[in-house]
Order: sequence, then structure tokens, then C-alpha cells
Amino acid sequence: MAPLASWLDIDPKSHFSIYNLPFGIISTSGESTPHVAVAIGDYALDLHAFAQQNGFSALSIIQPHQQVFSQPTLNGFAALGRPMHRVVREYLQSVLLKDGPFPDAFEKNKQLQKAALKPIEICKMHLPMFINDYTDFYAGLNHAYNVGVLFRGPQNALQPNYKHLPVGYHGRASSVVVSGTPIKRPNGQILANPTAEVKEPIFSESKKLDIELELGCFVCKPSSLGDPVRIADAPQHLFGIVLLNDWSARDIQAWEYVPLGPFNSKNFGTTISPWVVLMDALEPFAADGITNDTQVLPYLNEKGPKSHYSIDLSVSLTTASGNTSNIGKTTAKNLLFSFPQMLAHHTIGGCPFNVGDLLGSGTISGESKSEKGCLLEQTDNGKTEISLEGGEKRKFLENGDQVTITGCCGTEDGALVGFGECTGKIEPAVKISF
Amino acid sequence: MAPLASWLDIDPKSHFSIYNLPFGIISTSGESTPHVAVAIGDYALDLHAFAQQNGFSALSIIQPHQQVFSQPTLNGFAALGRPMHRVVREYLQSVLLKDGPFPDAFEKNKQLQKAALKPIEICKMHLPMFINDYTDFYAGLNHAYNVGVLFRGPQNALQPNYKHLPVGYHGRASSVVVSGTPIKRPNGQILANPTAEVKEPIFSESKKLDIELELGCFVCKPSSLGDPVRIADAPQHLFGIVLLNDWSARDIQAWEYVPLGPFNSKNFGTTISPWVVLMDALEPFAADGITNDTQVLPYLNEKGPKSHYSIDLSVSLTTASGNTSNIGKTTAKNLLFSFPQMLAHHTIGGCPFNVGDLLGSGTISGESKSEKGCLLEQTDNGKTEISLEGGEKRKFLENGDQVTITGCCGTEDGALVGFGECTGKIEPAVKISF
Ligand SMILES: [Ca+2]
Ligand SMILES: [Ca+2]
Ligand SMILES: [Mg+2]
Ligand SMILES: [Mg+2]
Ligand code: NI
Repeated sequence: MAPLASWLDIDPKSHFSIYNLPFGIISTSGESTPHVAVAIGDYALDLHAFAQQNGFSALSIIQPHQQVFSQPTLNGFAALGRPMHRVVREYLQSVLLKDGPFPDAFEKNKQLQKAALKPIEICKMHLPMFINDYTDFYAGLNHAYNVGVLFRGPQNALQPNYKHLPVGYHGRASSVVVSGTPIKRPNGQILANPTAEVKEPIFSESKKLDIELELGCFVCKPSSLGDPVRIADAPQHLFGIVLLNDWSARDIQAWEYVPLGPFNSKNFGTTISPWVVLMDALEPFAADGITNDTQVLPYLNEKGPKSHYSIDLSVSLTTASGNTSNIGKTTAKNLLFSFPQMLAHHTIGGCPFNVGDLLGSGTISGESKSEKGCLLEQTDNGKTEISLEGGEKRKFLENGDQVTITGCCGTEDGALVGFGECTGKIEPAVKISF
Repeated sequence: MAPLASWLDIDPKSHFSIYNLPFGIISTSGESTPHVAVAIGDYALDLHAFAQQNGFSALSIIQPHQQVFSQPTLNGFAALGRPMHRVVREYLQSVLLKDGPFPDAFEKNKQLQKAALKPIEICKMHLPMFINDYTDFYAGLNHAYNVGVLFRGPQNALQPNYKHLPVGYHGRASSVVVSGTPIKRPNGQILANPTAEVKEPIFSESKKLDIELELGCFVCKPSSLGDPVRIADAPQHLFGIVLLNDWSARDIQAWEYVPLGPFNSKNFGTTISPWVVLMDALEPFAADGITNDTQVLPYLNEKGPKSHYSIDLSVSLTTASGNTSNIGKTTAKNLLFSFPQMLAHHTIGGCPFNVGDLLGSGTISGESKSEKGCLLEQTDNGKTEISLEGGEKRKFLENGDQVTITGCCGTEDGALVGFGECTGKIEPAVKISF
């Protein structure tokens, strides 16, 4: 058993152990205004209610800022900075601890428990942050290599810049949605015959709808135009991590992306998990990423502690007939660049950041067949099929398919630091007539 | 003389004639909270003060919404929709008109004039909209062709998709700044020797700092995830137009942009003019763009009125020594796709829009040498020099250079519909030590 135990009854297999305490935005039927909560076991600890009823009585430093817990996004709390995140999270751990230092604050306060502990299943989850800008990187080396082999062969699989900088593109902030939001299959231009001499697009729903298994990282500290974030300072700018599914329409992408990058193939929806796992909660799982055999320039050279995380990631697909199959398992260590490196690179020319801005890692794949983070890789761009439970097969996603990403750090009962689920179900394309 | 004349003394050469009335956000030393104004001649008509002192007495329909004029962005006003923009603008025209229908409202109300008319030179201009998402297109056919010739030769200058869809990429909303904001030369990775077999980047300030002459168009009507905006409805989603300078670092761009598009080469600053010229003001100047010799798919097929505008555009460069040279003149008709087409394409897969989202046109160039909208084209990527007044020469921008874009519709005295200026001055790069 883990050394820290709560007076609250928590399933030892819960992603939301007392070691985690991720932050999210909830509403309930009785309380329809979204506000801040932390997940603990099967409960959402409603911090709006907790603060209102004096739950923070023994943490005076947060008291002038308690209105952040009544806000409909985590931006206000995030903006308080990492030292404050740490003391708030540690205080919440201490009041949830069995025989902790402040038993009167919560353990013995039945009225506060009744007001602030809500069964997680009655909570509606909202997008945790207001996102002004979203950037998606491409730091999953195995993914970049596998995709490069598919399109350019093994000799030129990786572009010359790939190991020198975290390649990325600006994504569409408005298209980021919270787990559970249905995703309509996009319409767009595709090539019916990609090998024809004359490239003639047709209007069609995407027939190559795919997932991308990624992490997302939220920024908690703003930076100004013309003011680069130094690599050593970058960790203080990071708030926490979520699971991210960068839904992708491969046929739309193939036609549109030259020369300016992915556009409509990506902006029809990007799903994130609702609970933001704080950087402090991840620290015990810090790990090395993929070793870069290229010497990076000094502005990307990390000298501090390890900045990748040993997060076990898993993707499952549930078909309309109800069969669920695991379609990939890997680890978040399969990244060539870390979030601090991404932020240092993103700002090196002076690009400004706001609190709540989101960085996507890029698709995370391992080296083996079972570790690939998208169907494009798993099926060699639709040339082969994967087999699902119940005998179904897939090249790409079909209508009614529900894809769920899970992620978790650790294996010890009662001490898991997990992300919960990032899920979405494919709905038929909009019918458009002219 | 133009048939509409104001009782206010307006320079007949002013961009801000009574036919224009563009909207912007001002503050003054006495009133530091930004709020809404319209430009008229040498004045900003402060709509916060105007509304407070009952200037809208004869326009009852706006009265329940007058708080939008006290907001620090135009988003609230924009969200009221195009029919409301039209009646407000026409009402303001009517109260500014000499011997207009409501002389008591403004012409004879000296107290209101004193409260609401501020010399434009004492006003600080702010970013007119809160921009959640910014997308930059590439619809300037001549620019795309010229750049394509430079990098791929005349046979493959345009990619196969170019005439089928408005090619674009997601830009960085946080990097959009208002005219006058200084721009620091970006640092980043560049190839010291681009033709070397082994591509080895160095860390450097950009040595190929460039401009891009563009228009920006603001969206005033939201659209939801999975809900495409039909081409026929798109004009109702457009609020107004500004001048846009998409500062670009060509050496950073060349190294970073494969395969996901421009990133740090663009996100260090994008300057827009402060006054938003409403779509209604531009309607008399509606024109055909470049004829597309490719039949577009029905979702991009415009059947309504002309949707390009005859805007005369001009770029000048003032060096640190004070010499000002015109370095390009062209017209906004040099676009292959219109803003309604861009919006219809952008949303066809379901990408959602918020009020205040910004669409960039892409660099606008004509066919002749004097009509090129960026230095990359003018100097063949730095192979030749352009000559400036006073004997200076340029391949790309130097520190202390100030670039000013102007744009204007019409030539008739007293009836110009202009954009004012979009200007920015290059400051030295940040010195970074490791
Ligand atoms: Ca992605
Ligand atoms: Ca541009
Ligand atoms: Mg990806
Ligand atoms: Mg451009
Ligand atoms: Ni005022």
C-alpha cells in the first residue's frame, strides 16, 4: 500500500489517488455555473463550495485569491503560478489525509464534506481552460519516422530539421473540445484518384478518419511579444498535462497540406481529457525521453531535471456493435523533445503566450507494431486492416466508433496518478446539398 | 464634390470621409479605459461618450445595446450583426450630415460635440478586436506564383491544390498587434549554408526579415463545431477589413517549414491597422478578383454580388536616416479567392468560429515589378537589391526601418473610404547569452 492514505474511501485502482489531485471544471444539475474542482477517487471535490465554506481555513495564503475557484475555467488558478499550485495541492492532500495535520478542516467537518464532495458521475465536465492559442508539435520521433517512411521511404523519412528543433504548427484553438464531445466526420476536398497525372479533387466526406494519441500541456505564465522564455525558466511556465486526441482526416490532409501545413484535416475537432494533472503530481514520474543523437543548439539544451514523464498510454476502440478493442499501448517517454523545449523554441523569435495556451506533443508511438499512436501507421495508410474484438476490421474509423485514450503514471495500489479518459464518438458527416 | 457633406470640417483628402466611418478602440490620457470610436476626418467620435450623452436619441433600436460602446474591444458591437452595423453606421452618417434629418442630435448639440469629438492625434489606438483565432490564407495568386517560381521554377510554381481551394494555415492570434507596435527582429534557427549537403543550422537573428502586404477580415458571427458556413451566408459573417502586415523571417521559414508549414517565421508579430472599415462601407467598391480558370467545387462557388474590393494599396519604407520610399503599389483585386470563399472553405469540415476571429488574405502582389507585396519577390530572395530614396539599398529589412502600408478606396474628394496606416518599425534582436 502507498504510504499516504485518505479518510475518504478511494478505490486503490482509481486514477485519482491522493497522490494526484488533478484540477477540472464541473457543473451539476443543481449548480449549472461551471467552476473548479479536483478529482479524488470517485468524487469531485468542489473547490467553489469548499472555499465558500471555509475549507481553506488553514491556508491563509490562498484566501485573497479564492474567487479563482468560482471561475468557469482554470485560467485564474493557473495564473497564480506554480508555487501557489503546489501549496494548494499539498494543502488539499493534507486535509484528505487520514489523521492529517488539519482534521477539523475537512475530515471531521461532515457539513463541508456534504457540500463539497460530489459523486464524479453526476458532474458534467467542461473544457478546463480558456485556450487562446493552441500549437501542435510533432515530437513523437517514431511516429514522424513511420509516417515519413510511408510517404518518402526510409532514406528521407525524417526531414533535415527534425532533430534540430521541435517541428510544430499552429492549431485551431476554437476546435479544442472536452472529452465526450461527439465528432462529426468532416467533409472536404479529397483526391478520388491520388495517383492520376492531373490532380482533380472531389467533394466528399473523409474516408480516412484517424486518431492521434498525444499529450497536451497548458501554459500558466504569460510571456510578452519579443520576450523569449529561456529553457531553464520554461518549467515554471507549465501548468499541467492532459490527454489529447488530434483527430485527423488523412485524405483531406494529403491534398491540402502542401505547402503551408495541415488545416481542415485537423481543425474539425481536437479532444482533451477534462482533468489537468499538475506538473507537481507528475514530478515523481519524471523520465528521460528519446535520446537525441543530434546536438541541439544551446537555447534548447536542458540542464535541469528530467522533463519527460513515464505515462502509460492506451487507446481503445468501441464499435457501434459494442465491441471494445485495445488498439495501441505505448509510453509518453517516446518523445524526442520535451514541453520545456517546445516552449523555449516557440518563443525564441518572440512569440507571446497567454495563460491557458495549449501545446500538443505530437503523436506518440513506440517502435513496435502494437505501440503505434494512429491508424495511419497501424494500417500503412489503409493498405492493411487491423482486427478488432468480435471479428470486425478497420482501416480507418467508421461512424459510431468511439475512441478512448487513457493514461496513467505508476502501478502501486492507492498511488496511481492517472488522467482518466479522453473519449469521442464519430457521428456521420453533415449532408450538404447545393 | 461628393454629394454627402458634413457640418464638420473634414479634409477632402481624408481617408475617413463621411462615406467611411470605420470603427476602432481608443483611449486618451484623460480616459485610459479603451472604448469604441469611429473615425471622421481628423477626429475620433467617441461612441462611449456619444451614447452616454444621448447621442443615439433618434435610434431606439441600439439603445438596449449601448454598453457595447464602452467595451475595450469591438467584439460586442460586431456580435450585434450586420443589420445593426448598418443602421448604426447610417445613423452616424445622418447626424454628421450637414442639414441632416436629426440636427438636434449632434450638429446643434455643442455640448455633445465637445464631449464626443476628440482630435485623432491625441487618441491612443488599441487592437480593435479580441482575436481568439487567426488564420492566414495565400490567396494572392501572383505572389504564390512568384514565390513558387523562386523555389520550384515556373513549371511547378503553383501546387496542384492552389486553384481548387484557398490554401491557408492557422496563425498565432497572440502575435497580432496594432499599428505602431515595434517589432523586434526575431532570433531563431537558420541555415548558414543552405546548399551544403548536410543541413546544419546555426542560432542567429534573422537576416531575411520581410513584410507581407495583406488584408485582414474580422468575423462577426459565430459558427459551431460541425456546422459549415454556406458560401451564400458567409457575407453575413464578415464584420470589416483592416490592412495587415504579416512580418516574415524568410531564412527561419526556409529551414523550419517542412512539412508542417510556417511557424516561428511568422509568429513574432503581425501588424494590423486600427480602424476596421465595415463591409457596408466597402460595398460601393465591390469588384471582381482574379478570374479563376479552374472550376471550383460547388461549396466555393459564389453566386451573389462581387466579393472583392477595389482597394488601392501602397507600401512605403522609411529608413533610420529618415528617407521614405514607396516600395510597392497594387490593388486588393489581386486575390484569387474572396473572404466569403475563405470562410466557407475554413468551416466546410466543421471548424468553429468565434466573433473576432481574423482571416488574412495572403500577400497581395500584382503582375508587374512595382506591384510586389513583399521583398522576397522584389529582390528575388535577396539576389538583387531595390534602390531607395537617398541612395540606400535593401535586400531585406534593416534595423530602424519603418514599413507603412496604406490602403484607400475611391479617388473623389470628400468621399474616400480609406484604412489609414498599418505601420511598424524594426528593432534590434534580443541579445541572448547562454
Ligand atoms: Ca497532431
Ligand atoms: Ca501571410
Ligand atoms: Mg499529430
Ligand atoms: Mg503571407
Ligand atoms: Ni471616451
